[in-house]
Amino acid sequence: MLTLYYSKNSCAFAAHVVLEDAKAHYKVIHINLQKDDQNSATYKKINAKQRVPTLVTRSGPLTETPAIMVYIAQEHPGANLLPSDNFGFAEMQSFNNYLSSTVHVAHAHKHRGKRWSKDEKSQKSMTEKVKENMTSCGELIEGQLLKGPWVLGNQYTICDPYLAVITRWLKDDGVNILKFPRIMEHNQRFQERDSAKKIIRIHNS
Amino acid sequence: MLTLYYSKNSCAFAAHVVLEDAKAHYKVIHINLQKDDQNSATYKKINAKQRVPTLVTRSGPLTETPAIMVYIAQEHPGANLLPSDNFGFAEMQSFNNYLSSTVHVAHAHKHRGKRWSKDEKSQKSMTEKVKENMTSCGELIEGQLLKGPWVLGNQYTICDPYLAVITRWLKDDGVNILKFPRIMEHNQRFQERDSAKKIIRIHNS
Repeated sequence: MLTLYYSKNSCAFAAHVVLEDAKAHYKVIHINLQKDDQNSATYKKINAKQRVPTLVTRSGPLTETPAIMVYIAQEHPGANLLPSDNFGFAEMQSFNNYLSSTVHVAHAHKHRGKRWSKDEKSQKSMTEKVKENMTSCGELIEGQLLKGPWVLGNQYTICDPYLAVITRWLKDDGVNILKFPRIMEHNQRFQERDSAKKIIRIHNS
Repeated sequence: MLTLYYSKNSCAFAAHVVLEDAKAHYKVIHINLQKDDQNSATYKKINAKQRVPTLVTRSGPLTETPAIMVYIAQEHPGANLLPSDNFGFAEMQSFNNYLSSTVHVAHAHKHRGKRWSKDEKSQKSMTEKVKENMTSCGELIEGQLLKGPWVLGNQYTICDPYLAVITRWLKDDGVNILKFPRIMEHNQRFQERDSAKKIIRIHNS
């Protein structure tokens, strides 16, 4: 049994979909960021970083979205959610790491500027640049990284639900998504999958 | 033959050490960030993100440090640079992803604030918080993540040269490293390895 600690429409959405894709035996526990659940003493014991997601496994807790998704996929090889050769695996990792260390970070400067500056004017200044930065990220994904029909080509992998999170954030951050027809088409295709439908319903409820 | 594009004492140091640890057949090409080599048309064709490192393989170029290091290690299994079970692999990934998406990002706000704000005062404000943020990262690594003697315990893995990069940055960012005796001891142990000695010499030359 795996337990995913998630918050709605956070990057934990991606791991949630991967659990469903993998047909894993799992349960979820909701961490309400508005109610500061992530700062409770109980949650801090599970995840000292006080972020979501956390995946609790029989061997212990795991953090960081790219690591969690690969773990779920490796534990459920029958679901075929990873490229099978080393270079394909590396391309998958490269894509997910770009999303976590550049795109997620770009997005986080909208509401979480206090992580990097104590000054409110500076936080506001960061917020103002988010749309521009997210647009640049979208351009790179649209023009180079997204092979199509899925992120890595013909195989649906753990990259696809992660891109779906980012697509949502592009819209939320005011990016003109019409400039990115390939990302939009990917999102449409993703949303037609049963696993996506089920998890989107939960995150929008 | 693998080709690593690196700049001195950047995070590419970690991939450089891993190539050496793996006894890979490789060459390196120096990208001088002071001379804006990363913005040349030639380099942009290899890495549209215009960052280092890039690893050019027979199958194509790879970017993102955690992805590159896993690829080198997987291509050279005899070097035994990765945990062999899924949970151990996930812990390795979790550590490296924390360094790339949180610690590296915290450090980048020192000199690269213009990525996230156009306003010089805001950039200065970000710089002022770097020491505090890097200290928090050091506390988490010292207190929880670093198992010892190596990052993941008894096995030296690709996490170790990556931590060595961060240890350097902690010092550069004014963090009181004496507060972190376990990280200091790790760094000492790391620097005694032949691979580390060789690559440190190159990056300090």
